[in-house]
Amino acid sequence: MRLFDGGRAPNPRRVRIFLAEKGIAVPLVPVDMGALGHKGEELTARNPLQRLPVLELDDGTVLTESVAICRYFEELHPEPALFGRGALGKALVEMWQRRIELNFYLPVSFAFRHTHPAMKDWEVPQLPEWGEMNRPKAVEFMKILDTHLASHEFAAGEDFSIADITGLVALDFTKPARIAIPEELENVQRWYRALKARPSAGA
Amino acid sequence: MRLFDGGRAPNPRRVRIFLAEKGIAVPLVPVDMGALGHKGEELTARNPLQRLPVLELDDGTVLTESVAICRYFEELHPEPALFGRGALGKALVEMWQRRIELNFYLPVSFAFRHTHPAMKDWEVPQLPEWGEMNRPKAVEFMKILDTHLASHEFAAGEDFSIADITGLVALDFTKPARIAIPEELENVQRWYRALKARPSAGA
Repeated sequence: MRLFDGGRAPNPRRVRIFLAEKGIAVPLVPVDMGALGHKGEELTARNPLQRLPVLELDDGTVLTESVAICRYFEELHPEPALFGRGALGKALVEMWQRRIELNFYLPVSFAFRHTHPAMKDWEVPQLPEWGEMNRPKAVEFMKILDTHLASHEFAAGEDFSIADITGLVALDFTKPARIAIPEELENVQRWYRALKARPSAGA
Repeated sequence: MRLFDGGRAPNPRRVRIFLAEKGIAVPLVPVDMGALGHKGEELTARNPLQRLPVLELDDGTVLTESVAICRYFEELHPEPALFGRGALGKALVEMWQRRIELNFYLPVSFAFRHTHPAMKDWEVPQLPEWGEMNRPKAVEFMKILDTHLASHEFAAGEDFSIADITGLVALDFTKPARIAIPEELENVQRWYRALKARPSAGA
């Protein structure tokens, strides 16, 4: 088994943080996304969508999509549970993972990809107006999240989960996307500090 | 337990199709999205994101996000398995569900919401250029899917799954989004006909 990895990009990082939380070591194949390695022949043959990360199993089976790769490892190594426990616990993790991904991570990505000069060869064509429209959407969601985190330690409740991992990479991604995390959102700030302090954050 | 439902909108429909495939009956509370009922007090109190569907359990616990609601029922009623079986099977369903959602359903939604006159009070402001940019993205993904479906009966392999449900609602959604499903994509056309022919498609 080997994991084609994309360095600092948020999706490859989601999987590395997940593996660090699980204590699982997987051989990495670094791909230079700066040199558009993910659009090269080796990767395109494995993932026609030309995205990273890509997990290749020993029999050649390919898994893509960071959350799908994480779920594969969750099934093989159930502890610590990062997709929740029991029907309601699993549903709540899925709910918050999706809420954070669709209403926060995605708007932050759009802001970055459609306004950052470094992205002009990646996102063709850039539509700066679309990028700008997404900044307030990301802030609106942080406000809803702040209210929720006033009574919950982590995104999906009292246990750390993949929803928090998506939150961490999205919060880190606000910096290149030039979206300020409002100081007054004290619960989001507290949560962000706690996530950054975990050893897995360096993965 | 009761399910606040949104009629013809694709996300409420995903859950109804899922329940029909499982043979589960849940009391529905119809919400008139045309009259912006999902932005009213009753719904906002349950889902600050003001989206449907919303599942309310007997103890008042609220679940939102169509896929999270489906996963809750999958855990309670595992057969027929619609999220896959075994580590690899579950990962492949998650992978295709995400691929179809992020690369097809989402572009189709953007095309609809940002270009359709009926959406101008919903998507404020509309950005028609963004909507237009998403039409070719949806078509590009259908081409990738067509190649995949040449050797697989369903999206995630040989068994029907939630990835097919997301595919069906997205394919139906191409019509109001004014995206043609290319005639030459014979495998996508065959798959679409098969999904529409299932009794659950009418749910």
